[in-house]
Amino acid sequence: MEKTVNIGLIGFGTIGSGVVATLNQNLALLENKVNKKVNLKRIVDLDITTDRGVEVKPGVLSTNVDDILEDEEIDIIIELVGGYQPALNFILRAMENGKHVVTANKALLAKHWHEIIESAQKNDVRVSFEASVGGGIPLLAPLNHGLAANNIQTIYGIINGTANYILTKMADEGLDFDTVLKEAQEMGYAEADPTFDIEGHDTAQKLIILGILGFGTYVEQEKFHVEGITRITPDDILFAKEELESVIKLLAIAQIDDGELEIRVHPTLVPQTHLLAAVNDVYNAVYMVGDVVGPVLMYGAGAGMMPTASAVVADCIDIIQDMERPVSYGPKETRIERIKDICEVESKYYMRITALDQPGVLHSISGVLSDLDISIESVSQKKADEGEAVPIFMVTHHATEKNMREALQLIDHMESVKEETLLLRLL
Amino acid sequence: MEKTVNIGLIGFGTIGSGVVATLNQNLALLENKVNKKVNLKRIVDLDITTDRGVEVKPGVLSTNVDDILEDEEIDIIIELVGGYQPALNFILRAMENGKHVVTANKALLAKHWHEIIESAQKNDVRVSFEASVGGGIPLLAPLNHGLAANNIQTIYGIINGTANYILTKMADEGLDFDTVLKEAQEMGYAEADPTFDIEGHDTAQKLIILGILGFGTYVEQEKFHVEGITRITPDDILFAKEELESVIKLLAIAQIDDGELEIRVHPTLVPQTHLLAAVNDVYNAVYMVGDVVGPVLMYGAGAGMMPTASAVVADCIDIIQDMERPVSYGPKETRIERIKDICEVESKYYMRITALDQPGVLHSISGVLSDLDISIESVSQKKADEGEAVPIFMVTHHATEKNMREALQLIDHMESVKEETLLLRLL
Repeated sequence: MEKTVNIGLIGFGTIGSGVVATLNQNLALLENKVNKKVNLKRIVDLDITTDRGVEVKPGVLSTNVDDILEDEEIDIIIELVGGYQPALNFILRAMENGKHVVTANKALLAKHWHEIIESAQKNDVRVSFEASVGGGIPLLAPLNHGLAANNIQTIYGIINGTANYILTKMADEGLDFDTVLKEAQEMGYAEADPTFDIEGHDTAQKLIILGILGFGTYVEQEKFHVEGITRITPDDILFAKEELESVIKLLAIAQIDDGELEIRVHPTLVPQTHLLAAVNDVYNAVYMVGDVVGPVLMYGAGAGMMPTASAVVADCIDIIQDMERPVSYGPKETRIERIKDICEVESKYYMRITALDQPGVLHSISGVLSDLDISIESVSQKKADEGEAVPIFMVTHHATEKNMREALQLIDHMESVKEETLLLRLL
Repeated sequence: MEKTVNIGLIGFGTIGSGVVATLNQNLALLENKVNKKVNLKRIVDLDITTDRGVEVKPGVLSTNVDDILEDEEIDIIIELVGGYQPALNFILRAMENGKHVVTANKALLAKHWHEIIESAQKNDVRVSFEASVGGGIPLLAPLNHGLAANNIQTIYGIINGTANYILTKMADEGLDFDTVLKEAQEMGYAEADPTFDIEGHDTAQKLIILGILGFGTYVEQEKFHVEGITRITPDDILFAKEELESVIKLLAIAQIDDGELEIRVHPTLVPQTHLLAAVNDVYNAVYMVGDVVGPVLMYGAGAGMMPTASAVVADCIDIIQDMERPVSYGPKETRIERIKDICEVESKYYMRITALDQPGVLHSISGVLSDLDISIESVSQKKADEGEAVPIFMVTHHATEKNMREALQLIDHMESVKEETLLLRLL
């Protein structure tokens, strides 16, 4: 074997423990593959006393991050601290000191993309982040390299395991959102504070990274529509299934249309015949269309200790095999001329309007829609006693988001409409 | 931009034309990505007069392969001749002359693997073959790199578009094999001589390549069980659907079990809940399980002019980005101690026995099975006039292939059994 490659791990939480477990388990395989000794020289965390259930060689643990950042023997750092700071400083300092970086930190990449990549290029090191989107699924490398002959046209992603687990359970068991969320929290599939996952922010951060690699365009999260799944009810799921042969999924969507990029995150009705409809539980998948290859889909575990570790370690191997490989992140020149506002996007829509069951209500609603050029494909109303509020399920033909939003404003201000209307888009 | 990279294309058939079309269409994208000029310097084919419908610069076409193999300026050759010879000679000569090789030739790789790879290593060039399995799906690089931290446990592939198209159509429309095959031939989804696809040989060649990358073990095709789809009837598909909630797919299977490799190709009953069951028409998918990442699946167009060209061109880009990258094909040391004979494999089985509807027949069959320790999970028999031959559908609990084969020998020699029994394995 040739020389030894030294790795420093910053952050000894769940994923960090998974990385150590993977290296312990498959070190011989990896060393054979790269034909070098691979040495996890140092692990830094504020807490080095808790037992993580993985074997660590004596002298490896430290609470001082300089033991990694200032150690000239360390070639690669793995950043698993998460969040913005001090993770950003650690990464920038490591690169300034000539170290390659592997990270799973999608929040940081989504926010500080340019700063991180420019530093990597300036310092002639590589930064790899396969684990940041889709957990263990080989996804970013296939997009960046395997599909490199393509102009990517479309990316649809189910890239948040918590949201997908909740939607799957709601569909399978007819349970409501809060019940399933509680169950997911008990099973460790949702955080104590689940906002980030269920409101779509995690999905949006990952979509930013997919957008860069797919379209060569960085879009700040504040610039696009992000909507979570908290308002979905079992009724919506049932209607989608029975009337539209569809399932509801939280989708990350980015697609190019004549030089204009649509980018958005929202719950979406996906036809049962689409492969994404079969992506259930905590699993993730990304469906992409290239102008040469057509559609491809990558599926697997989008989170979790070992799947994420699989991607982190694969990034290390890739760097070790090829420390000199030039850095290339997505297309260098973007085809995007402008980013579409969500209001310009066209779609078919599903609406659940909660209105009093009294004469004239449907007439007023359809009047509003017709005035805004929105034509109705189907309506279905539950029967109730006159004067009670009931859901009216409506599916439209193609309409613009702008007109739909205007219609909702008017509909939700009607006296007979008793709840904010739920609007979902069809794929 | 830095220097120019010159490519020579040998074989100007369907895929070759796709490669030219892709380079014409997306050259700016590729050149930006690799920061070099990319020049398709020469195309060699015996026929350079037929119009392929793609633009070719003057002076590029030649009928003399030496114009590529002996041109010192050409860095990469793309071999799309297909078959064993002269393709093998072209590839070996190119490598001896210091040229990198991109090929989609699975037949050649499956047969002459060692010779080709040894020559690549001796001549310090790269040979890339993403297009050889799964057409345009980024599949081999994810397996070889993205999952490099894993010991691969299982590979299940739907990797022949023709067979998958036929099985999908049979299932959707209740048509028999011959009718669908004829239709597939008319639509260009099956060759005039479809033997290679429908008998599983194409699938087997691709499985050999997956086996090398996944398990580090080369297995000759003669050493494993390969069975096609010609004996599947609409009755089998219907029974699978209604009684077993399964679909029938031609699967390539390779899995490791305690140091022993199972490798086989045969029609298999796949539960409807498995993602592979949703892979329809000419599409391909490979489902893999790694010991760290768990299951992943890659899906896309497994054949065709443009999808295959997408993979060929991606391989070229990968080589251009990184001509010096060391060659590594799969794990260097195999975990395989021996290759299991199919007779040792255990499975649940589906049988369609065609027997006279007369007293005692079922009793005799169940006696044979019981003597061989094969227990029956379910039996279903179509009614008919006494003395007429009817299908008996039977599903067993787990049994060894050896015992099943022995049972079939005995059953098919019974006087009351009128046709060779169809045996299918359940996933």
